Amino acid sequence: MDKVISVVGHAAIDLLFDVENIAVHNESHPIIEYNEYYGGGAANIAIAIARLGGRCQLISAVGGDFASSGYESELEKHGVDLSLLHRFENEKSTRAFVFTDREHNQSTYFDWGASVHLQELDPPVVDFVHLATSDSTYNAKIAKKAGFVSFDPGQDLVTYSQENLESILENTNMLFTNRHEIQRVCDMTGKCFDDILEMIGTVIVTYDVKGSIIHHNGEAISIPVVSVKAMDPTGAGDAYRAGFLLAYTRNYPLGICGRIGATVASFAVQSIGCQTDLPGWEEMEKRYEENFGELVSPA
Amino acid sequence: MDKVISVVGHAAIDLLFDVENIAVHNESHPIIEYNEYYGGGAANIAIAIARLGGRCQLISAVGGDFASSGYESELEKHGVDLSLLHRFENEKSTRAFVFTDREHNQSTYFDWGASVHLQELDPPVVDFVHLATSDSTYNAKIAKKAGFVSFDPGQDLVTYSQENLESILENTNMLFTNRHEIQRVCDMTGKCFDDILEMIGTVIVTYDVKGSIIHHNGEAISIPVVSVKAMDPTGAGDAYRAGFLLAYTRNYPLGICGRIGATVASFAVQSIGCQTDLPGWEEMEKRYEENFGELVSPA
Repeated sequence: MDKVISVVGHAAIDLLFDVENIAVHNESHPIIEYNEYYGGGAANIAIAIARLGGRCQLISAVGGDFASSGYESELEKHGVDLSLLHRFENEKSTRAFVFTDREHNQSTYFDWGASVHLQELDPPVVDFVHLATSDSTYNAKIAKKAGFVSFDPGQDLVTYSQENLESILENTNMLFTNRHEIQRVCDMTGKCFDDILEMIGTVIVTYDVKGSIIHHNGEAISIPVVSVKAMDPTGAGDAYRAGFLLAYTRNYPLGICGRIGATVASFAVQSIGCQTDLPGWEEMEKRYEENFGELVSPA
Repeated sequence: MDKVISVVGHAAIDLLFDVENIAVHNESHPIIEYNEYYGGGAANIAIAIARLGGRCQLISAVGGDFASSGYESELEKHGVDLSLLHRFENEKSTRAFVFTDREHNQSTYFDWGASVHLQELDPPVVDFVHLATSDSTYNAKIAKKAGFVSFDPGQDLVTYSQENLESILENTNMLFTNRHEIQRVCDMTGKCFDDILEMIGTVIVTYDVKGSIIHHNGEAISIPVVSVKAMDPTGAGDAYRAGFLLAYTRNYPLGICGRIGATVASFAVQSIGCQTDLPGWEEMEKRYEENFGELVSPA
Protein backbone atom coordinates (compact mmCIF):
# COMPACT_ATOMS: atom_id res chain seq x y z
CA MET A 1 0.00 0.00 0.00
CA ASP A 2 1.17 3.54 -0.79
CA LYS A 3 2.81 5.68 1.89
CA VAL A 4 0.65 8.60 3.03
CA ILE A 5 2.06 11.87 1.66
CA SER A 6 1.29 14.78 3.99
CA VAL A 7 1.22 18.05 2.07
CA VAL A 8 1.61 21.26 4.11
CA GLY A 9 0.56 24.69 2.84
CA HIS A 10 -2.34 26.62 1.40
CA ALA A 11 -5.80 25.54 0.27
CA ALA A 12 -6.84 28.75 -1.45
CA ILE A 13 -9.87 29.87 -3.39
CA ASP A 14 -8.64 31.70 -6.47
CA LEU A 15 -10.47 34.26 -8.56
CA LEU A 16 -8.79 34.31 -11.98
CA PHE A 17 -9.51 37.34 -14.17
CA ASP A 18 -8.84 37.94 -17.86
CA VAL A 19 -8.42 41.69 -18.27
CA GLU A 20 -7.65 44.03 -21.15
CA ASN A 21 -4.86 45.66 -19.16
CA ILE A 22 -3.26 45.45 -15.73
CA ALA A 23 -4.57 48.45 -13.75
CA VAL A 24 -1.56 50.27 -12.32
CA HIS A 25 -1.85 53.21 -9.93
CA ASN A 26 -5.14 55.08 -10.32
CA GLU A 27 -6.19 53.21 -13.44
CA SER A 28 -9.48 51.43 -14.04
CA HIS A 29 -9.76 48.62 -16.60
CA PRO A 30 -12.56 46.32 -17.73
CA ILE A 31 -12.66 42.61 -16.95
CA ILE A 32 -13.18 40.35 -19.97
CA GLU A 33 -14.10 37.28 -17.93
CA TYR A 34 -13.52 35.86 -14.48
CA ASN A 35 -14.24 32.70 -12.57
CA GLU A 36 -13.58 31.09 -9.20
CA TYR A 37 -11.21 28.15 -9.01
CA TYR A 38 -9.94 25.97 -6.19
CA GLY A 39 -6.21 26.39 -5.71
CA GLY A 40 -3.40 26.88 -3.23
CA GLY A 41 -0.14 25.05 -3.83
CA ALA A 42 -0.55 22.37 -1.15
CA ALA A 43 -4.16 21.60 -2.06
CA ASN A 44 -3.25 21.46 -5.77
CA ILE A 45 -0.57 18.89 -5.01
CA ALA A 46 -2.78 16.88 -2.64
CA ILE A 47 -5.65 16.64 -5.10
CA ALA A 48 -3.28 15.73 -7.94
CA ILE A 49 -1.76 12.90 -5.86
CA ALA A 50 -5.25 11.68 -4.93
CA ARG A 51 -6.36 11.78 -8.59
CA LEU A 52 -3.32 9.65 -9.50
CA GLY A 53 -4.51 7.10 -6.94
CA GLY A 54 -2.06 7.99 -4.17
CA ARG A 55 -2.86 8.41 -0.48
CA CYS A 56 -2.48 11.92 0.77
CA GLN A 57 -3.38 14.28 3.52
CA LEU A 58 -3.69 18.06 3.44
CA ILE A 59 -2.35 20.13 6.34
CA SER A 60 -3.68 23.67 5.93
CA ALA A 61 -5.39 26.42 7.90
CA VAL A 62 -8.89 27.11 6.58
CA GLY A 63 -11.65 29.61 7.39
CA GLY A 64 -15.34 29.32 8.11
CA ASP A 65 -16.14 29.67 4.39
CA PHE A 66 -14.18 26.53 3.49
CA ALA A 67 -17.17 24.18 3.79
CA SER A 68 -19.74 26.59 2.32
CA SER A 69 -17.50 27.35 -0.68
CA GLY A 70 -17.69 23.72 -1.79
CA TYR A 71 -13.92 23.29 -1.60
CA GLU A 72 -14.04 20.89 1.34
CA SER A 73 -16.40 18.49 -0.41
CA GLU A 74 -14.33 18.74 -3.62
CA LEU A 75 -11.19 17.59 -1.78
CA GLU A 76 -13.11 14.85 0.03
CA LYS A 77 -14.64 13.65 -3.22
CA HIS A 78 -11.18 12.99 -4.58
CA GLY A 79 -10.12 11.19 -1.41
CA VAL A 80 -7.81 13.76 0.19
CA ASP A 81 -7.67 13.17 3.96
CA LEU A 82 -8.67 16.36 5.82
CA SER A 83 -8.43 15.07 9.39
CA LEU A 84 -5.40 17.28 10.17
CA LEU A 85 -6.85 20.55 8.83
CA HIS A 86 -6.59 23.53 11.20
CA ARG A 87 -10.03 25.13 11.20
CA PHE A 88 -10.72 28.78 12.14
CA GLU A 89 -14.45 29.42 11.89
CA ASN A 90 -14.20 33.22 12.29
CA GLU A 91 -11.57 33.71 9.60
CA LYS A 92 -11.75 33.77 5.82
CA SER A 93 -10.04 31.02 3.86
CA THR A 94 -6.90 31.92 1.97
CA ARG A 95 -7.68 33.61 -1.34
CA ALA A 96 -5.77 34.82 -4.38
CA PHE A 97 -6.98 37.37 -6.92
CA VAL A 98 -5.00 36.98 -10.14
CA PHE A 99 -5.37 39.40 -13.07
CA THR A 100 -3.89 38.32 -16.41
CA ASP A 101 -3.71 40.64 -19.41
CA ARG A 102 -3.62 39.74 -23.11
CA GLU A 103 0.19 39.63 -23.06
CA HIS A 104 0.08 37.12 -20.15
CA ASN A 105 1.34 39.67 -17.62
CA GLN A 106 -0.06 38.88 -14.20
CA SER A 107 -0.89 40.99 -11.18
CA THR A 108 -1.67 39.03 -8.01
CA TYR A 109 -3.13 39.91 -4.61
CA PHE A 110 -3.04 37.34 -1.87
CA ASP A 111 -5.01 37.16 1.39
CA TRP A 112 -3.59 34.71 3.94
CA GLY A 113 -6.88 34.59 5.85
CA ALA A 114 -6.83 31.75 8.38
CA SER A 115 -3.20 30.93 7.45
CA VAL A 116 -1.96 33.84 9.59
CA HIS A 117 -2.51 31.53 12.57
CA LEU A 118 -0.16 28.79 11.31
CA GLN A 119 2.87 30.27 13.04
CA GLU A 120 1.23 29.85 16.47
CA LEU A 121 0.31 26.19 15.99
CA ASP A 122 2.00 23.02 17.10
CA PRO A 123 2.18 20.77 14.02
CA PRO A 124 1.46 17.04 14.07
CA VAL A 125 4.14 14.37 13.67
CA VAL A 126 4.04 13.01 10.11
CA ASP A 127 6.05 10.42 8.22
CA PHE A 128 6.52 11.68 4.64
CA VAL A 129 5.87 15.39 4.26
CA HIS A 130 6.01 17.88 1.38
CA LEU A 131 6.29 21.50 2.50
CA ALA A 132 4.72 23.76 -0.10
CA THR A 133 4.45 27.55 0.13
CA SER A 134 3.32 28.22 3.70
CA ASP A 135 4.28 29.90 6.95
CA SER A 136 8.02 29.39 7.44
CA THR A 137 7.81 28.99 11.24
CA TYR A 138 5.20 26.25 10.88
CA ASN A 139 7.26 24.59 8.15
CA ALA A 140 10.37 24.68 10.34
CA LYS A 141 8.50 23.06 13.25
CA ILE A 142 6.93 20.26 11.21
CA ALA A 143 10.22 19.53 9.38
CA LYS A 144 11.93 18.84 12.70
CA LYS A 145 9.50 16.06 13.55
CA ALA A 146 8.92 14.45 10.14
CA GLY A 147 10.46 11.22 8.84
CA PHE A 148 11.15 12.41 5.28
CA VAL A 149 10.98 16.06 4.21
CA SER A 150 10.41 17.36 0.68
CA PHE A 151 10.65 21.15 0.63
CA ASP A 152 9.55 23.79 -1.89
CA PRO A 153 9.96 27.33 -0.49
CA GLY A 154 8.55 28.84 -3.72
CA GLN A 155 7.96 32.55 -4.03
CA ASP A 156 7.60 32.83 -0.23
CA LEU A 157 11.35 32.36 0.11
CA VAL A 158 11.64 36.14 0.50
CA THR A 159 9.60 35.93 3.70
CA TYR A 160 11.80 33.24 5.32
CA SER A 161 14.16 34.22 8.11
CA GLN A 162 17.66 32.83 7.67
CA GLU A 163 17.12 30.83 10.87
CA ASN A 164 13.92 29.15 9.63
CA LEU A 165 15.42 28.48 6.21
CA GLU A 166 18.56 26.87 7.64
CA SER A 167 16.55 24.84 10.15
CA ILE A 168 14.29 23.46 7.41
CA LEU A 169 17.20 22.73 5.05
CA GLU A 170 18.96 20.75 7.78
CA ASN A 171 15.91 18.48 7.93
CA THR A 172 15.23 18.39 4.18
CA ASN A 173 15.77 15.24 2.11
CA MET A 174 14.56 16.64 -1.19
CA LEU A 175 14.46 20.26 -2.38
CA PHE A 176 12.36 21.70 -5.22
CA THR A 177 13.15 25.22 -6.49
CA ASN A 178 13.26 27.19 -9.71
CA ARG A 179 16.55 28.64 -10.96
CA HIS A 180 15.99 31.99 -9.23
CA GLU A 181 15.06 30.45 -5.90
CA ILE A 182 18.08 28.11 -5.72
CA GLN A 183 20.31 31.17 -6.18
CA ARG A 184 18.49 32.90 -3.35
CA VAL A 185 18.81 29.82 -1.12
CA CYS A 186 22.58 29.96 -1.73
CA ASP A 187 22.70 33.72 -1.03
CA MET A 188 20.68 33.45 2.18
CA THR A 189 22.68 30.55 3.60
CA GLY A 190 26.11 31.64 2.31
CA LYS A 191 26.55 28.17 0.79
CA CYS A 192 27.34 27.27 -2.81
CA PHE A 193 25.06 24.95 -4.79
CA ASP A 194 27.32 21.92 -4.25
CA ASP A 195 27.24 22.45 -0.47
CA ILE A 196 23.43 22.62 -0.52
CA LEU A 197 23.24 19.50 -2.68
CA GLU A 198 25.65 17.60 -0.42
CA MET A 199 23.65 18.57 2.67
CA ILE A 200 20.26 17.62 1.20
CA GLY A 201 20.99 14.76 -1.20
CA THR A 202 18.43 15.45 -3.93
CA VAL A 203 17.78 18.89 -5.48
CA ILE A 204 15.33 19.42 -8.34
CA VAL A 205 15.64 22.72 -10.21
CA THR A 206 12.88 23.71 -12.63
CA TYR A 207 13.39 25.87 -15.73
CA ASP A 208 9.81 26.61 -16.93
CA VAL A 209 9.38 25.49 -20.55
CA LYS A 210 12.93 24.14 -20.59
CA GLY A 211 12.02 21.35 -18.17
CA SER A 212 13.89 20.44 -15.00
CA ILE A 213 17.19 18.99 -13.77
CA ILE A 214 17.40 16.45 -10.94
CA HIS A 215 20.70 16.66 -9.06
CA HIS A 216 21.57 13.58 -7.03
CA ASN A 217 24.68 11.63 -6.15
CA GLY A 218 26.95 13.44 -8.65
CA GLU A 219 24.41 13.06 -11.46
CA ALA A 220 22.35 15.76 -13.19
CA ILE A 221 19.32 14.16 -14.87
CA SER A 222 17.67 16.44 -17.44
CA ILE A 223 13.88 16.12 -17.75
CA PRO A 224 12.15 17.75 -20.75
CA VAL A 225 8.63 19.14 -20.63
CA VAL A 226 5.83 17.13 -22.25
CA SER A 227 4.54 19.42 -25.02
CA VAL A 228 0.80 20.08 -25.24
CA LYS A 229 -1.32 23.04 -26.31
CA ALA A 230 -1.02 25.08 -23.11
CA MET A 231 -3.98 27.17 -21.96
CA ASP A 232 -2.79 28.25 -18.51
CA PRO A 233 0.63 27.60 -16.97
CA THR A 234 -0.73 28.03 -13.41
CA GLY A 235 -0.46 24.81 -11.45
CA ALA A 236 2.11 23.12 -13.71
CA GLY A 237 4.74 23.18 -10.96
CA ASP A 238 2.31 21.73 -8.42
CA ALA A 239 1.28 18.93 -10.79
CA TYR A 240 4.96 18.14 -11.46
CA ARG A 241 5.63 17.84 -7.73
CA ALA A 242 2.55 15.62 -7.23
CA GLY A 243 3.61 13.18 -9.94
CA PHE A 244 7.22 13.23 -8.79
CA LEU A 245 6.41 12.62 -5.12
CA LEU A 246 3.92 9.82 -5.70
CA ALA A 247 6.35 8.07 -8.08
CA TYR A 248 9.12 8.55 -5.51
CA THR A 249 7.09 6.92 -2.72
CA ARG A 250 6.34 4.11 -5.18
CA ASN A 251 10.10 3.57 -5.50
CA TYR A 252 10.55 4.66 -9.12
CA PRO A 253 14.08 5.84 -9.94
CA LEU A 254 14.56 9.62 -9.87
CA GLY A 255 14.67 10.05 -13.66
CA ILE A 256 11.30 8.34 -14.01
CA CYS A 257 9.89 10.37 -11.09
CA GLY A 258 10.83 13.50 -13.05
CA ARG A 259 9.29 12.26 -16.28
CA ILE A 260 6.08 11.25 -14.46
CA GLY A 261 6.04 14.74 -12.93
CA ALA A 262 6.47 16.33 -16.35
CA THR A 263 3.65 14.19 -17.72
CA VAL A 264 1.22 15.15 -14.94
CA ALA A 265 2.19 18.83 -15.45
CA SER A 266 1.23 18.57 -19.13
CA PHE A 267 -2.36 17.81 -18.08
CA ALA A 268 -2.52 20.76 -15.67
CA VAL A 269 -1.61 23.33 -18.35
CA GLN A 270 -4.30 22.11 -20.77
CA SER A 271 -7.10 24.06 -19.11
CA ILE A 272 -7.65 27.12 -16.93
CA GLY A 273 -7.33 26.55 -13.18
CA CYS A 274 -4.95 24.31 -11.27
CA GLN A 275 -7.25 21.36 -10.59
CA THR A 276 -9.46 21.22 -13.65
CA ASP A 277 -7.74 18.62 -15.82
CA LEU A 278 -5.67 16.31 -13.61
CA PRO A 279 -5.09 12.73 -14.79
CA GLY A 280 -5.62 9.35 -13.19
CA TRP A 281 -2.59 7.02 -13.13
CA GLU A 282 -3.60 5.18 -16.32
CA GLU A 283 -4.14 8.40 -18.27
CA MET A 284 -0.77 9.64 -17.05
CA GLU A 285 0.84 6.33 -17.98
CA LYS A 286 -0.58 6.47 -21.52
CA ARG A 287 0.81 9.93 -22.20
CA TYR A 288 4.09 9.03 -20.46
CA GLU A 289 4.57 6.10 -22.81
CA GLU A 290 3.72 8.22 -25.88
CA ASN A 291 6.55 10.55 -24.88
CA PHE A 292 9.12 8.46 -23.02
CA GLY A 293 8.49 4.81 -23.92
CA GLU A 294 7.38 2.03 -21.62
CA LEU A 295 6.85 2.91 -17.96
CA VAL A 296 8.47 -0.03 -16.20
CA SER A 297 7.29 -0.63 -12.64
CA PRO A 298 10.05 -0.59 -10.04
CA ALA A 299 11.29 -3.98 -8.91
CA MET B 1 -46.12 63.91 -2.55
CA ASP B 2 -42.54 63.70 -3.92
CA LYS B 3 -41.89 63.15 -7.60
CA VAL B 4 -40.47 59.72 -8.44
CA ILE B 5 -36.79 60.03 -9.36
CA SER B 6 -35.75 57.30 -11.80
CA VAL B 7 -32.03 56.57 -11.54
CA VAL B 8 -30.40 54.79 -14.49
CA GLY B 9 -27.07 52.97 -14.26
CA HIS B 10 -25.23 50.29 -12.33
CA ALA B 11 -26.14 48.30 -9.24
CA ALA B 12 -22.74 46.75 -8.59
CA ILE B 13 -21.31 44.49 -5.93
CA ASP B 14 -17.93 45.90 -4.92
CA LEU B 15 -15.02 44.09 -3.32
CA LEU B 16 -12.86 46.75 -1.66
CA PHE B 17 -9.31 45.71 -0.76
CA ASP B 18 -6.73 47.39 1.46
CA VAL B 19 -3.34 46.33 0.14
CA GLU B 20 0.27 47.08 1.04
CA ASN B 21 1.06 47.96 -2.57
CA ILE B 22 -0.66 48.08 -5.95
CA ALA B 23 0.52 44.99 -7.87
CA VAL B 24 1.81 46.19 -11.24
CA HIS B 25 2.92 43.82 -14.02
CA ASN B 26 4.09 40.47 -12.65
CA GLU B 27 4.01 41.55 -9.03
CA SER B 28 2.28 39.80 -6.15
CA HIS B 29 1.27 41.70 -3.01
CA PRO B 30 -0.53 40.77 0.20
CA ILE B 31 -4.03 41.95 1.05
CA ILE B 32 -4.38 43.60 4.47
CA GLU B 33 -8.16 43.36 4.57
CA TYR B 34 -11.07 43.14 2.16
CA ASN B 35 -14.84 43.15 2.29
CA GLU B 36 -17.85 43.09 0.00
CA TYR B 37 -20.00 46.20 -0.30
CA TYR B 38 -23.06 47.09 -2.29
CA GLY B 39 -22.31 49.85 -4.79
CA GLY B 40 -22.73 51.02 -8.35
CA GLY B 41 -23.35 54.72 -8.95
CA ALA B 42 -27.06 54.50 -9.77
CA ALA B 43 -27.87 52.18 -6.87
CA ASN B 44 -25.85 54.37 -4.49
CA ILE B 45 -27.91 57.39 -5.53
CA ALA B 46 -31.21 55.51 -5.41
CA ILE B 47 -30.61 54.14 -1.92
CA ALA B 48 -29.45 57.56 -0.66
CA ILE B 49 -32.61 59.22 -2.02
CA ALA B 50 -34.74 56.50 -0.40
CA ARG B 51 -32.91 56.91 2.92
CA LEU B 52 -33.64 60.64 2.79
CA GLY B 53 -37.32 59.77 2.42
CA GLY B 54 -37.62 60.40 -1.31
CA ARG B 55 -39.38 58.21 -3.85
CA CYS B 56 -37.08 56.58 -6.31
CA GLN B 57 -36.76 53.82 -8.80
CA LEU B 58 -33.65 52.01 -9.98
CA ILE B 59 -33.24 51.18 -13.67
CA SER B 60 -30.32 48.74 -13.98
CA ALA B 61 -29.39 45.44 -15.59
CA VAL B 62 -28.74 42.75 -12.98
CA GLY B 63 -27.60 39.11 -13.05
CA GLY B 64 -28.88 35.92 -11.51
CA ASP B 65 -26.75 36.50 -8.42
CA PHE B 66 -28.53 39.77 -7.61
CA ALA B 67 -31.14 38.19 -5.38
CA SER B 68 -28.83 35.58 -3.78
CA SER B 69 -26.21 38.22 -2.98
CA GLY B 70 -28.65 40.00 -0.67
CA TYR B 71 -28.44 43.22 -2.67
CA GLU B 72 -32.02 43.03 -3.95
CA SER B 73 -33.48 42.74 -0.46
CA GLU B 74 -31.21 45.54 0.79
CA LEU B 75 -32.59 47.93 -1.84
CA GLU B 76 -36.16 46.81 -1.19
CA LYS B 77 -35.69 47.25 2.54
CA HIS B 78 -34.89 50.92 1.98
CA GLY B 79 -37.88 51.36 -0.30
CA VAL B 80 -36.20 51.60 -3.72
CA ASP B 81 -38.68 50.57 -6.43
CA LEU B 82 -37.19 47.72 -8.50
CA SER B 83 -40.12 47.12 -10.86
CA LEU B 84 -38.19 48.41 -13.89
CA LEU B 85 -35.01 46.34 -13.34
CA HIS B 86 -33.76 44.43 -16.37
CA ARG B 87 -33.04 40.90 -15.14
CA PHE B 88 -30.64 38.47 -16.85
CA GLU B 89 -30.64 35.20 -14.93
CA ASN B 90 -27.67 33.66 -16.77
CA GLU B 91 -25.36 36.64 -16.32
CA LYS B 92 -23.34 37.87 -13.37
CA SER B 93 -24.25 41.16 -11.75
CA THR B 94 -21.96 44.09 -12.34
CA ARG B 95 -18.92 43.98 -10.04
CA ALA B 96 -15.96 46.18 -9.21
CA PHE B 97 -12.71 45.07 -7.60
CA VAL B 98 -10.97 48.08 -6.07
CA PHE B 99 -7.46 47.86 -4.57
CA THR B 100 -6.31 50.79 -2.42
CA ASP B 101 -2.76 51.09 -1.11
CA ARG B 102 -1.52 52.92 1.98
CA GLU B 103 -0.95 56.11 -0.04
CA HIS B 104 -4.60 55.97 -1.25
CA ASN B 105 -3.62 55.00 -4.79
CA GLN B 106 -6.35 52.88 -6.36
CA SER B 107 -6.37 50.19 -8.99
CA THR B 108 -9.82 49.18 -10.24
CA TYR B 109 -11.15 46.32 -12.35
CA PHE B 110 -14.74 46.43 -13.53
CA ASP B 111 -16.97 43.68 -14.88
CA TRP B 112 -20.10 44.92 -16.65
CA GLY B 113 -21.81 41.54 -16.30
CA ALA B 114 -25.51 41.82 -17.19
CA SER B 115 -25.04 45.51 -18.11
CA VAL B 116 -23.56 44.54 -21.48
CA HIS B 117 -27.16 43.93 -22.58
CA LEU B 118 -28.32 47.50 -21.85
CA GLN B 119 -27.48 48.72 -25.34
CA GLU B 120 -29.97 46.28 -26.91
CA LEU B 121 -32.89 47.23 -24.68
CA ASP B 122 -35.81 49.54 -25.23
CA PRO B 123 -35.98 51.77 -22.15
CA PRO B 124 -39.24 52.74 -20.41
CA VAL B 125 -40.75 56.23 -20.53
CA VAL B 126 -39.99 58.03 -17.27
CA ASP B 127 -40.77 61.49 -15.94
CA PHE B 128 -37.75 62.68 -13.94
CA VAL B 129 -34.57 60.73 -14.69
CA HIS B 130 -30.97 60.87 -13.50
CA LEU B 131 -28.52 59.18 -15.85
CA ALA B 132 -25.53 57.88 -13.88
CA THR B 133 -22.57 55.99 -15.35
CA SER B 134 -24.12 53.44 -17.70
CA ASP B 135 -24.29 52.33 -21.31
CA SER B 136 -24.30 55.44 -23.49
CA THR B 137 -26.70 54.04 -26.09
CA TYR B 138 -29.25 53.16 -23.42
CA ASN B 139 -28.79 56.56 -21.81
CA ALA B 140 -29.32 58.29 -25.17
CA LYS B 141 -32.54 56.33 -25.78
CA ILE B 142 -34.06 56.97 -22.36
CA ALA B 143 -33.08 60.68 -22.42
CA LYS B 144 -35.13 61.17 -25.61
CA LYS B 145 -38.32 60.01 -23.91
CA ALA B 146 -37.93 61.48 -20.42
CA GLY B 147 -39.65 64.57 -19.04
CA PHE B 148 -36.63 65.97 -17.15
CA VAL B 149 -33.07 64.71 -17.60
CA SER B 150 -30.21 65.01 -15.12
CA PHE B 151 -27.00 63.61 -16.62
CA ASP B 152 -23.70 62.53 -15.10
CA PRO B 153 -21.42 60.85 -17.68
CA GLY B 154 -18.72 60.24 -15.04
CA GLN B 155 -15.58 58.31 -15.90
CA ASP B 156 -17.45 56.48 -18.69
CA LEU B 157 -17.35 59.65 -20.77
CA VAL B 158 -14.37 58.16 -22.62
CA THR B 159 -16.63 55.36 -23.88
CA TYR B 160 -19.31 57.71 -25.30
CA SER B 161 -19.55 58.22 -29.03
CA GLN B 162 -19.83 61.88 -30.04
CA GLU B 163 -23.28 61.08 -31.44
CA ASN B 164 -24.60 59.61 -28.18
CA LEU B 165 -23.06 62.40 -26.12
CA GLU B 166 -24.58 65.14 -28.29
CA SER B 167 -27.96 63.41 -28.37
CA ILE B 168 -28.05 63.14 -24.57
CA LEU B 169 -26.86 66.72 -24.04
CA GLU B 170 -29.66 68.00 -26.33
CA ASN B 171 -32.16 66.39 -23.96
CA THR B 172 -30.36 67.25 -20.72
CA ASN B 173 -31.78 69.79 -18.25
CA MET B 174 -29.07 69.44 -15.61
CA LEU B 175 -25.46 68.27 -16.03
CA PHE B 176 -23.13 66.97 -13.27
CA THR B 177 -19.40 66.61 -14.04
CA ASN B 178 -16.05 67.07 -12.39
CA ARG B 179 -13.57 69.63 -13.71
CA HIS B 180 -11.82 67.12 -15.99
CA GLU B 181 -15.05 65.76 -17.46
CA ILE B 182 -16.52 69.19 -18.31
CA GLN B 183 -13.35 69.92 -20.30
CA ARG B 184 -13.75 66.63 -22.14
CA VAL B 185 -17.43 67.36 -22.85
CA CYS B 186 -16.31 70.65 -24.43
CA ASP B 187 -13.56 68.92 -26.43
CA MET B 188 -15.86 66.16 -27.70
CA THR B 189 -18.66 68.51 -28.76
CA GLY B 190 -16.44 71.35 -30.01
CA LYS B 191 -18.41 73.74 -27.79
CA CYS B 192 -17.08 76.13 -25.13
CA PHE B 193 -18.38 75.95 -21.56
CA ASP B 194 -20.75 78.89 -22.04
CA ASP B 195 -22.34 77.21 -25.06
CA ILE B 196 -22.86 74.00 -23.07
CA LEU B 197 -24.33 75.96 -20.17
CA GLU B 198 -26.65 77.92 -22.44
CA MET B 199 -27.87 74.72 -24.11
CA ILE B 200 -28.50 72.87 -20.83
CA GLY B 201 -29.43 75.54 -18.32
CA THR B 202 -27.86 74.14 -15.15
CA VAL B 203 -24.33 72.74 -14.91
CA ILE B 204 -22.81 71.55 -11.62
CA VAL B 205 -19.03 71.11 -11.60
CA THR B 206 -17.43 69.30 -8.66
CA TYR B 207 -13.89 69.97 -7.37
CA ASP B 208 -13.29 67.15 -4.82
CA VAL B 209 -12.37 68.61 -1.44
CA LYS B 210 -12.82 72.13 -2.77
CA GLY B 211 -16.58 71.64 -3.12
CA SER B 212 -18.67 72.41 -6.18
CA ILE B 213 -19.94 75.27 -8.31
CA ILE B 214 -23.51 75.49 -9.65
CA HIS B 215 -23.75 77.41 -12.88
CA HIS B 216 -27.22 78.69 -13.77
CA ASN B 217 -28.73 81.76 -15.34
CA GLY B 218 -25.49 83.78 -15.32
CA GLU B 219 -24.77 82.90 -11.70
CA ALA B 220 -21.98 80.68 -10.29
CA ILE B 221 -22.96 79.49 -6.81
CA SER B 222 -20.01 78.14 -4.84
CA ILE B 223 -20.79 75.24 -2.47
CA PRO B 224 -18.17 74.25 0.13
CA VAL B 225 -17.71 70.69 1.39
CA VAL B 226 -19.01 69.83 4.85
CA SER B 227 -15.90 68.84 6.79
CA VAL B 228 -15.90 65.55 8.70
CA LYS B 229 -13.27 62.94 9.52
CA ALA B 230 -13.21 61.15 6.17
CA MET B 231 -12.62 57.39 6.09
CA ASP B 232 -13.35 56.65 2.43
CA PRO B 233 -14.10 59.17 -0.32
CA THR B 234 -15.89 56.54 -2.45
CA GLY B 235 -19.56 57.39 -2.88
CA ALA B 236 -19.28 61.06 -1.90
CA GLY B 237 -20.23 62.19 -5.41
CA ASP B 238 -23.22 59.84 -5.51
CA ALA B 239 -24.45 61.04 -2.12
CA TYR B 240 -24.08 64.67 -3.27
CA ARG B 241 -26.21 63.97 -6.35
CA ALA B 242 -28.85 62.15 -4.27
CA GLY B 243 -29.25 65.07 -1.87
CA PHE B 244 -29.16 67.61 -4.68
CA LEU B 245 -31.76 65.83 -6.80
CA LEU B 246 -34.22 65.16 -3.99
CA ALA B 247 -33.96 68.78 -2.82
CA TYR B 248 -34.44 69.93 -6.42
CA THR B 249 -37.63 67.90 -6.86
CA ARG B 250 -38.78 69.36 -3.54
CA ASN B 251 -38.37 72.84 -5.09
CA TYR B 252 -35.47 74.11 -2.98
CA PRO B 253 -33.42 76.84 -4.68
CA LEU B 254 -30.24 75.60 -6.40
CA GLY B 255 -27.85 76.91 -3.74
CA ILE B 256 -29.70 75.00 -1.04
CA CYS B 257 -29.82 71.89 -3.27
CA GLY B 258 -26.01 72.05 -3.46
CA ARG B 259 -25.62 72.52 0.29
CA ILE B 260 -27.99 69.62 0.99
CA GLY B 261 -25.92 67.53 -1.46
CA ALA B 262 -22.69 68.49 0.32
CA THR B 263 -24.27 67.58 3.67
CA VAL B 264 -25.38 64.13 2.47
CA ALA B 265 -21.90 63.57 0.97
CA SER B 266 -20.32 64.26 4.37
CA PHE B 267 -22.15 61.21 5.77
CA ALA B 268 -21.03 58.93 2.91
CA VAL B 269 -17.32 59.61 3.51
CA GLN B 270 -17.50 58.81 7.24
CA SER B 271 -17.28 55.06 6.74
CA ILE B 272 -16.02 52.52 4.22
CA GLY B 273 -18.41 51.63 1.42
CA CYS B 274 -20.86 53.83 -0.45
CA GLN B 275 -24.09 52.90 1.34
CA THR B 276 -22.96 52.27 4.90
CA ASP B 277 -23.65 55.60 6.61
CA LEU B 278 -26.36 57.44 4.69
CA PRO B 279 -28.59 59.86 6.61
CA GLY B 280 -32.34 60.25 6.95
CA TRP B 281 -33.75 63.70 6.16
CA GLU B 282 -33.76 64.82 9.81
CA GLU B 283 -30.15 63.75 10.37
CA MET B 284 -29.17 65.59 7.20
CA GLU B 285 -31.14 68.65 8.30
CA LYS B 286 -29.39 68.73 11.68
CA ARG B 287 -25.90 68.69 10.17
CA TYR B 288 -26.98 71.14 7.44
CA GLU B 289 -28.08 73.63 10.09
CA GLU B 290 -24.83 73.20 12.08
CA ASN B 291 -22.93 74.20 8.95
CA PHE B 292 -25.18 76.49 6.93
CA GLY B 293 -27.83 77.84 9.33
CA GLU B 294 -31.56 77.22 9.21
CA LEU B 295 -32.88 75.06 6.36
CA VAL B 296 -35.95 76.98 5.27
CA SER B 297 -38.57 74.94 3.42
CA PRO B 298 -39.43 76.23 -0.05
CA ALA B 299 -42.59 78.31 -0.29
